[in-house]
Amino acid sequence: MKRSDRLVAMTHYLVEHPMELVSLPFFSNEYKAAKSSVSEDLAIVNKRFQQEGIGYLQSISGAAGGVRYIPQFSSNNSEIFVDELCERLEDPSRLLPGGYLFMSDILGDPSTVRNIGRIFATEFSDLEIDAVVTVATKGIPIAYAVASFLNVPVVIVRRDPKVTEGSTVSINYVSGSSRKIQTMVLSKRSLSEGAKVCIIDDFMKAGGTINGMKNLLTEFNAHVAAIGVLAEAEDEDEERVVDNYTSLVQITNVDVKNNQIEVHKGNFIHNKGM
Amino acid sequence: MKRSDRLVAMTHYLVEHPMELVSLPFFSNEYKAAKSSVSEDLAIVNKRFQQEGIGYLQSISGAAGGVRYIPQFSSNNSEIFVDELCERLEDPSRLLPGGYLFMSDILGDPSTVRNIGRIFATEFSDLEIDAVVTVATKGIPIAYAVASFLNVPVVIVRRDPKVTEGSTVSINYVSGSSRKIQTMVLSKRSLSEGAKVCIIDDFMKAGGTINGMKNLLTEFNAHVAAIGVLAEAEDEDEERVVDNYTSLVQITNVDVKNNQIEVHKGNFIHNKGM
Repeated sequence: MKRSDRLVAMTHYLVEHPMELVSLPFFSNEYKAAKSSVSEDLAIVNKRFQQEGIGYLQSISGAAGGVRYIPQFSSNNSEIFVDELCERLEDPSRLLPGGYLFMSDILGDPSTVRNIGRIFATEFSDLEIDAVVTVATKGIPIAYAVASFLNVPVVIVRRDPKVTEGSTVSINYVSGSSRKIQTMVLSKRSLSEGAKVCIIDDFMKAGGTINGMKNLLTEFNAHVAAIGVLAEAEDEDEERVVDNYTSLVQITNVDVKNNQIEVHKGNFIHNKGM
Repeated sequence: MKRSDRLVAMTHYLVEHPMELVSLPFFSNEYKAAKSSVSEDLAIVNKRFQQEGIGYLQSISGAAGGVRYIPQFSSNNSEIFVDELCERLEDPSRLLPGGYLFMSDILGDPSTVRNIGRIFATEFSDLEIDAVVTVATKGIPIAYAVASFLNVPVVIVRRDPKVTEGSTVSINYVSGSSRKIQTMVLSKRSLSEGAKVCIIDDFMKAGGTINGMKNLLTEFNAHVAAIGVLAEAEDEDEERVVDNYTSLVQITNVDVKNNQIEVHKGNFIHNKGM
């Protein structure tokens, strides 16, 4: 195969297999090329990926070595994307009774959701996450987007047990906003003991739901290494019960009377420098 | 930018923007290259994509023309993938009380789900779908995978209304397996009038749920152009109420007593020839 053909095939392969260690002999065999040519190809791909701000190729030397595509979204790309998101969210027609915000259209757009996932995956790429945990329903698409870049499975906590889950572990918790007792269940075989996980959700006020997930996860001896929420908002009645999280946007000053919302960048920018 | 760099950048761009019309001047400007060079690059990408069995570039001529990446999963790729899926599903440890099958691990794996989406998107790529509709919870990841390849939004029907959906339209329907009256709701502003949609779900027995979605969609004057289910199984008590659908696998002979399941390829293979 010619270099030009190999570059197309390899770029596609790497983009479709993020975080996966690929050996040089695999490419060399797949594309019928000498290892030295493959190395040169990879150097070209690596340089280009970095310049596009979409990640880099990590080289692992030794017999079990190879390359791994680490997807990243550059600070610049992330900021442009989140600025746009803030603008879309500030549209007053999104305001719903009770000061809630309509976001289903944004969460329904696969390419937007994919970029949201890209930013969280960039933040969490060093944490050796084993699984992404979310709670039904709205967090699911974001969780899959994050998981696809981290190349790990998604585990979905449900509000209602279903026969198709097999045996489950469940907890009761008090939801922040409604003060009602709610239930969360997780299929027993969905998560292995002692897994390192990140929690993803679309929206956080006081953080009762996320706290509930944390409690449920202790039943699996899971270690919560990171928490990511698309949007955070203040809860007037209750203090936040979750303190270590990454948010993309912050919703402030929801003024139902004057039909206005203010949306700012979340704390992901500060985390960046760490 | 050199050809080798352009090929990497363009491949990435096209893979991340399926079904989107990209003008030659866009590439030419983005990568500082003559239009003739860009045309040659695209010919290389197109040939390679076809040989990898992952789709092709469609050229649209004229002033508003350009190229569009149509993702496809070749019959060969699809069959290999579905054969593997059948094997994984035949594992007797998946059997649950009532003859149900545990599939959460498969549905939790982003790369498996992405390939499932790729097959449906290949089947439906000519239908000019405006949106992918699914019902919470298990169908959601598949719906996003399909939608990401078709470059259209996902619309999620819920079993329970939520304040964050705004005003909704709801219907009651009788579920095939439990004969219980159930409710489905869809946010009013989630789907525009007269949209052409495909319905995606993880599992279908008699098809009551899908039929419910079809009824709900008539309230939006939507046209259901296609139905895709990951797995279909026979319902012993009830005849199927949905007849035009694409399935990837067929679950037959669930023998709880002898702890055996048979899983075969679904009807997507026959549809292929059409």
